[in-house]
Amino acid sequence: MGKVLLNWSPSEKDLNLMQSMLVGHDLRPTPWTPSDIAEAQVLIYSNRTPELDDLIPQMKSLKLIQSYYAGVDHLPWKKIPREVMVAAGTGANSEAVADMAVALMLSALRHLYLYDAEMRLNVWRRRPGKDTDGLKVTVLGTGSIGQAIARRLKSMNAVVTGVSRSGAAVPPFDHVLTVDSWIADPQGDVVIIALPLNKGTKNLINAAVLNKMPNGTLIVNIARAAIVEPESLYRWLTDNPNSVYASDVWWNEVLGTKPTVVEQPVPIESLKNVVMAPHVAGFTQTTQIKVLRVACENVGRFLAGQPPLYLVNHEDYEGLEE
Amino acid sequence: MGKVLLNWSPSEKDLNLMQSMLVGHDLRPTPWTPSDIAEAQVLIYSNRTPELDDLIPQMKSLKLIQSYYAGVDHLPWKKIPREVMVAAGTGANSEAVADMAVALMLSALRHLYLYDAEMRLNVWRRRPGKDTDGLKVTVLGTGSIGQAIARRLKSMNAVVTGVSRSGAAVPPFDHVLTVDSWIADPQGDVVIIALPLNKGTKNLINAAVLNKMPNGTLIVNIARAAIVEPESLYRWLTDNPNSVYASDVWWNEVLGTKPTVVEQPVPIESLKNVVMAPHVAGFTQTTQIKVLRVACENVGRFLAGQPPLYLVNHEDYEGLEE
Repeated sequence: MGKVLLNWSPSEKDLNLMQSMLVGHDLRPTPWTPSDIAEAQVLIYSNRTPELDDLIPQMKSLKLIQSYYAGVDHLPWKKIPREVMVAAGTGANSEAVADMAVALMLSALRHLYLYDAEMRLNVWRRRPGKDTDGLKVTVLGTGSIGQAIARRLKSMNAVVTGVSRSGAAVPPFDHVLTVDSWIADPQGDVVIIALPLNKGTKNLINAAVLNKMPNGTLIVNIARAAIVEPESLYRWLTDNPNSVYASDVWWNEVLGTKPTVVEQPVPIESLKNVVMAPHVAGFTQTTQIKVLRVACENVGRFLAGQPPLYLVNHEDYEGLEE
Repeated sequence: MGKVLLNWSPSEKDLNLMQSMLVGHDLRPTPWTPSDIAEAQVLIYSNRTPELDDLIPQMKSLKLIQSYYAGVDHLPWKKIPREVMVAAGTGANSEAVADMAVALMLSALRHLYLYDAEMRLNVWRRRPGKDTDGLKVTVLGTGSIGQAIARRLKSMNAVVTGVSRSGAAVPPFDHVLTVDSWIADPQGDVVIIALPLNKGTKNLINAAVLNKMPNGTLIVNIARAAIVEPESLYRWLTDNPNSVYASDVWWNEVLGTKPTVVEQPVPIESLKNVVMAPHVAGFTQTTQIKVLRVACENVGRFLAGQPPLYLVNHEDYEGLEE
């Protein structure tokens, strides 16, 4: 029998579903007893809470941290011993996130984000849009989210280039380049960022890369804001008024559903060539259940003695916060 | 040698392209001489101009009216003798229009149209979106635009039902229903209107149909506004705040690119559950050339003695304006 700590209190319905997927194992939502903490082999992590930093060093039996979501950049990496495995919540919200990438892309290509305010005043101001047919789209990241985006783009007859560390061919991409070769020559009418945030991708899109992109490039970000260097982006958007940044993710974020004011390090909201959404790419009616299933399936594998899937490398994340 | 009247003055570049596709034939843009009018066998029609009503009865040699665009509802049908063939500009802008259908659908499903105004004030108000994975989408119209929409929807794993007069199976639709059976039971989480406007489709979406749709239905219109009865729609949207109408087409329209104020018969712009674009679905950088090619290819077929493609039935249109 395994003991599994959850760093939140799920609804009764969610907890019942998790328990039904982990029969014979002991699920412990917050609050925990000292023996829960000492004995649990698995931590399922949903959101970063201040307690997490203190908790992990006290988990003397910890073998696996399972992230609820695809990104593991928010974990307190300094506190995680190298022998503890960390698994991402891979694939759970890929379809929902890919939809948002397409929504942001089309909203920018067809100027939809500009029309709402005008049309509500009955002002018609028609602008020619860009076609997806033959459009050159580069997707940074060829994982499950990148593949789901590429599948959608192929249905629109776009020419889709993937970019990954290895550059290995992956369907349904037309071509795949290595990150290094793309950085040297950052091609694409549209560049969609679908990479994990880690030490290798932080500030990957900086002034040197942006300045190689022609005026008119559309950048879509459904990954993490910190992959893009904010001051350089702000300057590039100001200098290249035909370029557009359409993003679901921001350097400063407050999740939850209560309306909240969130300021960014640069006044990007004042630029017309920006399409903005409040980190909702993975926030859909069915995503929560899918995320839960992926996490529990993987934890179930591990507790049954099989190697867990979706493991990440500590070296890619240690020192990310510095 | 054929004589072809154009009811506008194309740019020199466009005229050269048209002439290169219709070698040996005589293209006559505005202004015309009396003999141009009397001798031309073909009229290529781009926009409805007041002159068109007087022109057609004077075209004593007229055999074919070729529409530049997919819709032929704007033609002065009363003035067109039954023996004159009328061909639509079928397929030319299908991909661009399908992109706009997807853009409007995703903007509504993911609330993107509401975020721009909020995010520009740095206000984060996150709303759970709807997934396309497993979404039941009904596309009214299984022609080239409907098929291009369905192809995109299948890449998102939606369940796609087509609706046509015949109900005949067409790939890539999962099912196809007849208009009559769908009207009796108007199913679909999302209903996308991609039908031509004619006598059979005018006010097809009326109070009786709307009142059978559950609160939460999304209607997307990239066809013609007059397929939807405005007062009934306005009442339905008011009574069903979870339903959304996302449309590129309006009862009153002023095309062109100069900013213009256009009022609608109902104050639909005041409703939050409406996504609005100013008839730009087919207005993209490459559409104009594609439209021109489709029209000239079809006219070329006719002038070479072959039957023209994309012919419509007079009976479907005569009396549409009454």
